[in-house]
Amino acid sequence: MPSSAKRNFTKRTIVHLAEGYCTPRGAKTTRGVLVYSEHDSVAVIDSTNAGKTARQLLDGGGDIPVVGSLADVFRMGLKPDTLVVGVTPVGGRLPTSFRRPVIEALEAGIDVWSGMHQFLQNDQELRLAAERGGAEIWDVRKPPEDLPVGMGAMINNKSYSMLMVGTDCALGKMTAGLVIRDAAKAIGKHYEFVATGQTGMMITGWGHPVDAIPGDFMCGCVEKDCLSVDGQCDAIIVEGQGSLLHPGYSPVTLGLLHGCMPDGMILCHQPSRTAVSNREHVLIPALSIVAKLYEDVQKLLKPSRVIGGVLNTHGMAEDTARAAIEAAENDLGRPVTDPVRFGAEVLVEAIEKHRKEIGK
Amino acid sequence: MPSSAKRNFTKRTIVHLAEGYCTPRGAKTTRGVLVYSEHDSVAVIDSTNAGKTARQLLDGGGDIPVVGSLADVFRMGLKPDTLVVGVTPVGGRLPTSFRRPVIEALEAGIDVWSGMHQFLQNDQELRLAAERGGAEIWDVRKPPEDLPVGMGAMINNKSYSMLMVGTDCALGKMTAGLVIRDAAKAIGKHYEFVATGQTGMMITGWGHPVDAIPGDFMCGCVEKDCLSVDGQCDAIIVEGQGSLLHPGYSPVTLGLLHGCMPDGMILCHQPSRTAVSNREHVLIPALSIVAKLYEDVQKLLKPSRVIGGVLNTHGMAEDTARAAIEAAENDLGRPVTDPVRFGAEVLVEAIEKHRKEIGK
Repeated sequence: MPSSAKRNFTKRTIVHLAEGYCTPRGAKTTRGVLVYSEHDSVAVIDSTNAGKTARQLLDGGGDIPVVGSLADVFRMGLKPDTLVVGVTPVGGRLPTSFRRPVIEALEAGIDVWSGMHQFLQNDQELRLAAERGGAEIWDVRKPPEDLPVGMGAMINNKSYSMLMVGTDCALGKMTAGLVIRDAAKAIGKHYEFVATGQTGMMITGWGHPVDAIPGDFMCGCVEKDCLSVDGQCDAIIVEGQGSLLHPGYSPVTLGLLHGCMPDGMILCHQPSRTAVSNREHVLIPALSIVAKLYEDVQKLLKPSRVIGGVLNTHGMAEDTARAAIEAAENDLGRPVTDPVRFGAEVLVEAIEKHRKEIGK
Repeated sequence: MPSSAKRNFTKRTIVHLAEGYCTPRGAKTTRGVLVYSEHDSVAVIDSTNAGKTARQLLDGGGDIPVVGSLADVFRMGLKPDTLVVGVTPVGGRLPTSFRRPVIEALEAGIDVWSGMHQFLQNDQELRLAAERGGAEIWDVRKPPEDLPVGMGAMINNKSYSMLMVGTDCALGKMTAGLVIRDAAKAIGKHYEFVATGQTGMMITGWGHPVDAIPGDFMCGCVEKDCLSVDGQCDAIIVEGQGSLLHPGYSPVTLGLLHGCMPDGMILCHQPSRTAVSNREHVLIPALSIVAKLYEDVQKLLKPSRVIGGVLNTHGMAEDTARAAIEAAENDLGRPVTDPVRFGAEVLVEAIEKHRKEIGK
């Protein structure tokens, strides 16, 4: 299952490997796939938490059991066809304690999906185990061989194009985009989600790992994926990455902007952050100023408008969260919400209103 | 000789391989190294043009002979230690007719430098030839293993930081930057040139091939290279790539901007272009508008100013060229010239003036 522009979603029965990492942040990939995908997740392996449930540890995922080993999964009569490596530790190397369960899975014919920087396919022991078991390894962050250069083709798009943008990295842009897609479905609209990172790709089964793609080809990959669904849906929701303010990841953000040429953007922010992550000298200005930056960067290629905002209010008391949302709305002059907490309806309304205005 | 942030220039004696490609555009890498590096270039191999000189074919390079084969080079008593593959054909694969001379060079103990997308080191036949001859292959576009993420460190730079920017790709940004560096040297100023592409790297012996670096690490590589010379020179001139207007290469441009955090920028343009290369639907607006785009993208991280402009007037009659420069100056409100044709003095003056203004 290589990354590609073909929509090839196949529903999988998944066991997650998150040994020793079972927290919402530690097992970010597991959490994303558990909560937001249509795959059947049947168990999470973490021997340090065996006997608990996903809900207790991962802030989502319901009653799915946390078990001690792959043998336990089999003993429970569960029959996964896929093992998801649910973590992405700094450095992107497979933790030592993960080797044995990964080999056991491959030998049992269970495909392994990994978002590590270190590709499992390049590890001879793992490759041989896959051969023995007739299983496949999907290194989700491995760029495909055939990389296109962006042509600006989405300037002439048919379906409304929407990009999730942000004031920083890692503040819930993917989640917000998926919640918006699902809220649109509830009112009979078909929004296609274009994944641009590993977790999103595991959820949808396709896309490109844009942050791992060489600079010359990032726009082209996003453009190719958008074109593959353009005209076949009401709107294309492109998963966001990084931020134009981020002095490390900003090129990835621009790759998405010029690849998908958004008609609209939704600006995501976490109110507790005043500076870019781990870069205290890079301050985050008011949302209205950041929104203007995104619009300014696009306007010479195609007019684009920030049509709403998302606040990630996780961990804030409800009244504080609502006050922060109101303040953000006053600053931005556009609808703002925390879609995970309060629903995404106002954002879907904003998209539908803009679609009508520009006739897309 | 891996790409790195260490300044490790060693003067080489170079034979260029440009078989069948001996035009300024076809042998772009050869021309750049011939005209702008301190290496000794002793011959160019192109059997279809044997007997001519570089000047006749490459618009520069003086009386350096064009010869039919490596054997001819030896017969002339020349002793190159390095063979530069002087072309980068679309697709980035070594032309078939280049294999034999490359193998002959390696077997004779001559190092080979190549900017192909297809790495020569991965070609077993070439690798074995290098082993036999005790020669080294430098795949200039191969990213190093150890890639840093940008931290925005150049916000607090010591030496004045200058980025060459443009309205499009391939319009002479590297050349203009080198000419500016040399004009500064003539008045006793030390401007360090930071290479960000293969030809620039061959000229200086160091740098990163930014367009071949995965998105997450482009800023970090440029930042690392700038920091390695910051405080040790009057100004850092960063080689430009692509354009913020280019819907394929713009992320590379932003990687440079946020990596080097320029105090000043010089905007390069070719007056004959009205749209971005091969993208007729992406029009190039007035230089003053493009300059504002570059300044707007930077201003939330660090104030940066376009302090001058470069027009590539190659092929234009002199009076037409001078009229175009005057028109550009009126639009931009800043000094503009074609430094290759009319000298870079006004641009060095603009840099020195800005340095004094901001105290760097």
